[in-house]
Amino acid sequence: MINNCYTRSAAYYETDQMGIVHHTNHIRYYEEARVDFMHKIGCDVKELEQNGIYIPNIDAYAKYKKPIKFSDKFYVEVRLAQFNGTKMHYEYTVRLCENDEIASTGYTTHCFVDDDFKPFNLKKKFPVYYNRLAESVT
Amino acid sequence: MINNCYTRSAAYYETDQMGIVHHTNHIRYYEEARVDFMHKIGCDVKELEQNGIYIPNIDAYAKYKKPIKFSDKFYVEVRLAQFNGTKMHYEYTVRLCENDEIASTGYTTHCFVDDDFKPFNLKKKFPVYYNRLAESVT
Amino acid sequence: MINNCYTRSAAYYETDQMGIVHHTNHIRYYEEARVDFMHKIGCDVKELEQNGIYIPNIDAYAKYKKPIKFSDKFYVEVRLAQFNGTKMHYEYTVRLCENDEIASTGYTTHCFVDDDFKPFNLKKKFPVYYNRLAESVT
Amino acid sequence: MINNCYTRSAAYYETDQMGIVHHTNHIRYYEEARVDFMHKIGCDVKELEQNGIYIPNIDAYAKYKKPIKFSDKFYVEVRLAQFNGTKMHYEYTVRLCENDEIASTGYTTHCFVDDDFKPFNLKKKFPVYYNRLAESVT
Repeated sequence: MINNCYTRSAAYYETDQMGIVHHTNHIRYYEEARVDFMHKIGCDVKELEQNGIYIPNIDAYAKYKKPIKFSDKFYVEVRLAQFNGTKMHYEYTVRLCENDEIASTGYTTHCFVDDDFKPFNLKKKFPVYYNRLAESVT
Repeated sequence: MINNCYTRSAAYYETDQMGIVHHTNHIRYYEEARVDFMHKIGCDVKELEQNGIYIPNIDAYAKYKKPIKFSDKFYVEVRLAQFNGTKMHYEYTVRLCENDEIASTGYTTHCFVDDDFKPFNLKKKFPVYYNRLAESVT
Repeated sequence: MINNCYTRSAAYYETDQMGIVHHTNHIRYYEEARVDFMHKIGCDVKELEQNGIYIPNIDAYAKYKKPIKFSDKFYVEVRLAQFNGTKMHYEYTVRLCENDEIASTGYTTHCFVDDDFKPFNLKKKFPVYYNRLAESVT
Repeated sequence: MINNCYTRSAAYYETDQMGIVHHTNHIRYYEEARVDFMHKIGCDVKELEQNGIYIPNIDAYAKYKKPIKFSDKFYVEVRLAQFNGTKMHYEYTVRLCENDEIASTGYTTHCFVDDDFKPFNLKKKFPVYYNRLAESVT
């Protein structure tokens, strides 16, 4: 089973003057965790791009529960919740390592586009990647 | 009537290797537009913080329609959709200046907290700000 | 004469927990000012890239004098100090609009590379851009 | 002997449309490495701030040799080169893990200020931190 957990600590430049990690950085952490997850399941984002597969966001959402502060260690749990060849939907939970409390939960939805930003179905053109993603839905 | 429109162009460092503005920057643009709006209605964020009023995000959402590219001019329409003294909810539309096409739509929800991150109701402690926000809901 | 001045105010997300604009953002402001300057002299960066001319940094330096705080208005004076067809060197001064005090001074050096990141001399391949830059050195 | 090496890989959102990590992010990596180093020598930045010691940048410089690309692993070597109680000067080398090639070299200089941004000498008020830094100069 894939380890779907991505761990980091918060950088100084990620804080804002409220003394907490700026809210948009949570969504950047989601991206880091998704990239890590996709690598682990054999769908490395760099490799996909070299094959002409780009994965822009269709949407992104974050719900903030507890602030992350500078140097806090946290981990991101990532789950591929839906995938049908044209779209994939990920869910994320960020937890503080200290006490496992939830810092934020969120989701992102993505499609697959070519060099010209034309959406396409992964199934026909890239069955190997399609299968790896399909098998990773939980 | 308040001008609820905030105009900018996309910086080079805001792009990513897909050749478009990174999706999280749309949500940063929402913040810039909300800060601008709050200033215009007499609820300047800097002034609020000097009075011990902090406005963290409860959530943030963006739905992406068209990419913004480097140096594209765009404007953000911002609307205070809900406010009840403890929370406020903003809706945003980012449009490209060139053709008024929607780049993204989104929303953010905020509460009011003091120096210790304790939430409070703006109505009792800061009736002037309360009234200005209440009158700006549309 | 080219207006070499670029004006902005500091965004909330650009601050850090020291309550000031994070130091690296000054260098991002330099980039914004340089892009603005290059557009004004007829060397628009987007247009250059469409012609296969990329302008990576060789170096970047900033010396910090006064903090920029959230919502402070500031302007960046930019000067093309050296240009010889293969490199160009810019100098920057960021000043607070309120009192013209210097927030930072800095410089960046750039070369010109093609799609494969091979450096080249602008003079032979792009004499029009070469001349516009050469005439803008002060 | 302190391990002065800090390892990471480049995030997607750190790239720009040139397909490389944006140059200002190298300087953010320097900061991450310095924070890591200071923690290891017993001068944890979070702890220092809790004691009213803030460490703004006086300057920052980076010289770029090789681009870092998305998902590249790299490490930052950090060295405290000078320290006299009122200022400290760090030098950095970022190398790609793949081949140990230098991506960038740089430096930053810092002073110590209190809550009111007044500079002070660490020696008198915080001899323990002073000694730890003094002993870490190499």
